[in-house]
Amino acid sequence: MKAQILVIGNEILNGKTLDTNSKVLAKELTKLGLDIQQIVVISDNQKTIISYLDKALTNAEFIFITGGLGPTSDDVTKQTLNDYFGYDLSMNQEVLAHIKSMFKNRYNSPINEQNIKQAMLPKQARIFINEYGTASGMWFKKNNSHCISLPGVPHEMKHLLIGQIVPTIKSEFNLPQNHIRTVNTIGLGESNIADRLTHWEKNLHPKISVAYLPDLGKVRIRVSTSDKDFQNAQLHINRAIEQLLPLIQDIYYGQDDRPIENVVAELLTEKSLTISCAESYTGGAIANQITSIPGASAYFKGGLVVYNNDMKTDLLGIPKSIIQKLGPANETIVEQMALGTQRRFETDIALATSGNAGPTQGDINVPVGTVFIGLAIMKKVETFEFKMNGPRKQVIERSLNKINELLFHHLK
Amino acid sequence: MKAQILVIGNEILNGKTLDTNSKVLAKELTKLGLDIQQIVVISDNQKTIISYLDKALTNAEFIFITGGLGPTSDDVTKQTLNDYFGYDLSMNQEVLAHIKSMFKNRYNSPINEQNIKQAMLPKQARIFINEYGTASGMWFKKNNSHCISLPGVPHEMKHLLIGQIVPTIKSEFNLPQNHIRTVNTIGLGESNIADRLTHWEKNLHPKISVAYLPDLGKVRIRVSTSDKDFQNAQLHINRAIEQLLPLIQDIYYGQDDRPIENVVAELLTEKSLTISCAESYTGGAIANQITSIPGASAYFKGGLVVYNNDMKTDLLGIPKSIIQKLGPANETIVEQMALGTQRRFETDIALATSGNAGPTQGDINVPVGTVFIGLAIMKKVETFEFKMNGPRKQVIERSLNKINELLFHHLK
Repeated sequence: MKAQILVIGNEILNGKTLDTNSKVLAKELTKLGLDIQQIVVISDNQKTIISYLDKALTNAEFIFITGGLGPTSDDVTKQTLNDYFGYDLSMNQEVLAHIKSMFKNRYNSPINEQNIKQAMLPKQARIFINEYGTASGMWFKKNNSHCISLPGVPHEMKHLLIGQIVPTIKSEFNLPQNHIRTVNTIGLGESNIADRLTHWEKNLHPKISVAYLPDLGKVRIRVSTSDKDFQNAQLHINRAIEQLLPLIQDIYYGQDDRPIENVVAELLTEKSLTISCAESYTGGAIANQITSIPGASAYFKGGLVVYNNDMKTDLLGIPKSIIQKLGPANETIVEQMALGTQRRFETDIALATSGNAGPTQGDINVPVGTVFIGLAIMKKVETFEFKMNGPRKQVIERSLNKINELLFHHLK
Repeated sequence: MKAQILVIGNEILNGKTLDTNSKVLAKELTKLGLDIQQIVVISDNQKTIISYLDKALTNAEFIFITGGLGPTSDDVTKQTLNDYFGYDLSMNQEVLAHIKSMFKNRYNSPINEQNIKQAMLPKQARIFINEYGTASGMWFKKNNSHCISLPGVPHEMKHLLIGQIVPTIKSEFNLPQNHIRTVNTIGLGESNIADRLTHWEKNLHPKISVAYLPDLGKVRIRVSTSDKDFQNAQLHINRAIEQLLPLIQDIYYGQDDRPIENVVAELLTEKSLTISCAESYTGGAIANQITSIPGASAYFKGGLVVYNNDMKTDLLGIPKSIIQKLGPANETIVEQMALGTQRRFETDIALATSGNAGPTQGDINVPVGTVFIGLAIMKKVETFEFKMNGPRKQVIERSLNKINELLFHHLK
């Protein structure tokens, strides 16, 4: 079944806000077996919304709308949808009670006028209560098309979608499975991989398509099929993947939605190894990535962000004279940092970074893009020098990928 | 002049990749004075692209396209646009030389077949060389409409756009200014602000519109006008802002694109104050935010991520007995953490966090969502307890906003 995603919001159209909702929607709906035709962003404007709906309802069975459900005057989605589908607004007592209790528990304040309005909802729509906010999910129907309106606040949208909308669709519609597999690699560029796989690609079943999705040192290879027959689709995809894997053994780390950092986390847990880090140019990004994975406290003992040379001496025991002689960014320093961190936190593994991520030269002893990584594993220590392109954020992102690549190869 | 943004990519349509390009485009084009009608995401499919172009070229003067310019077989944008506009592909020697030198400097490897193809470009299009990659920018023209194709890799797209496309449009087109001002607040909810501003909103000039953009503790108030007359527009917007500011003095921190963390960074610089942090549940997010602002090394001395109770004793000097008695998350511990960090790094200000950001209870002594923040400023130390809603990521994001709010009020 065909689906479209409509994002409503001037703040997205003028670039003030990044739209993350459509990614979450697209991912969940694709998993459900819906076929996303397009994602469209338009303004908070009654006429524009109606003209979009006129077209979309004839093209797609499902339309998912986010945004424009706030309590303030600029939010027009609810009124527009209610009028478009010819429904009637009335006070929903269950929603009103929910909003009242939310205000009491969260803000310890009585509900105000603006928020009471949030409980005025289209009587004929199916209503889904928003646990984290005041804007409810609403499900409208016209002929054979379904139009589902969700709030624009990302975590509210996500919870309504995953907790209520997805299970409802699953139980009420018999959707076909979507046949997509993604094979994840790290450490080799897109064009080099494509070169290596030319022969494999040429010999694939004609209904199999391949796409390469590069991302700062990682490349995902997506294998999909347009074959509507479930058995055939499975067969051809499995065969393609079976032939692919031996060709990429050296760079392969997993399939589908498992990020490299989660693979590394699982390996650390599996092997009962502990880890710590000392960061200079990555400024906390390594610790932040490690701790964003639930359960990290079992293996992550702690991290240091050393932006100051004295702290390298004080916290990590690197002699002042070495730093003065060599400068803060080089292989010797990251080696000493990794060893000092390993000692300090008493961990099996310690990571260290020092280098120049830009944007300007500053007073660092190496040019922008030159970075050093130190890796102490048990009684061994290794150091690496890299030249990385791109702005600061990319240099740090690439470094995180590189560190995960190094850890993965050591641990697997 | 009207503009549309077209994003091409199956990986966005199926939710594998977050589209950040359209935000960057929307922001820069709005600043230029273009009026973005819509953003559309469609698949890497020749037919779909052509049917979009047929409509878009009659509705908008500018169409910006990103994605689908890679060297692999799944990328069809270049060929499709070339055929659609009736141009001819030929080898662009300047681009070929650029790609060759890139490969030599970056990968220390000769260029391969796939990448040579990247220099085959539509002869009649204006070509913009991509400093960071192999996919060039291409500018097509049909009647009075311009179609500009840019690569999909975010930092490549951004550099081409800001470095070459925006200056070209600026110099060749006489675009009107866009009249939007955003006033930024922190510390009060959307509906409470709207309540407070009811009278102000009612008395605004009829051509002025107001929108509230909430974001985890921050609310931006956007004031815009549809008035096409430059003088009038300026006058009405200035007046609206002048009347607004006295009403929100207690929560106001700046205008337009200055994030609160940059305002705090400027205050630290201005007052020559130094800062450090010790993080438990924020896991490096504070250090990461501070160091993402260029020039942070002048005031940020370093940070600790203490995921381990022993480290709170070892690094921060908090007696083991206190941690054993009270548990790791409470006001006493964050007070001790802040003071210990301030001593350790010898900074004027030190921040500390401890609490439970979820997703599960774990072995922390407080429920999910309960967090403590400690703030040592000079010889004073303050502690705060908050109950925060939402998943882990939001709890951390809200905490960063709260910390910036606290710092801002202390420093201003």
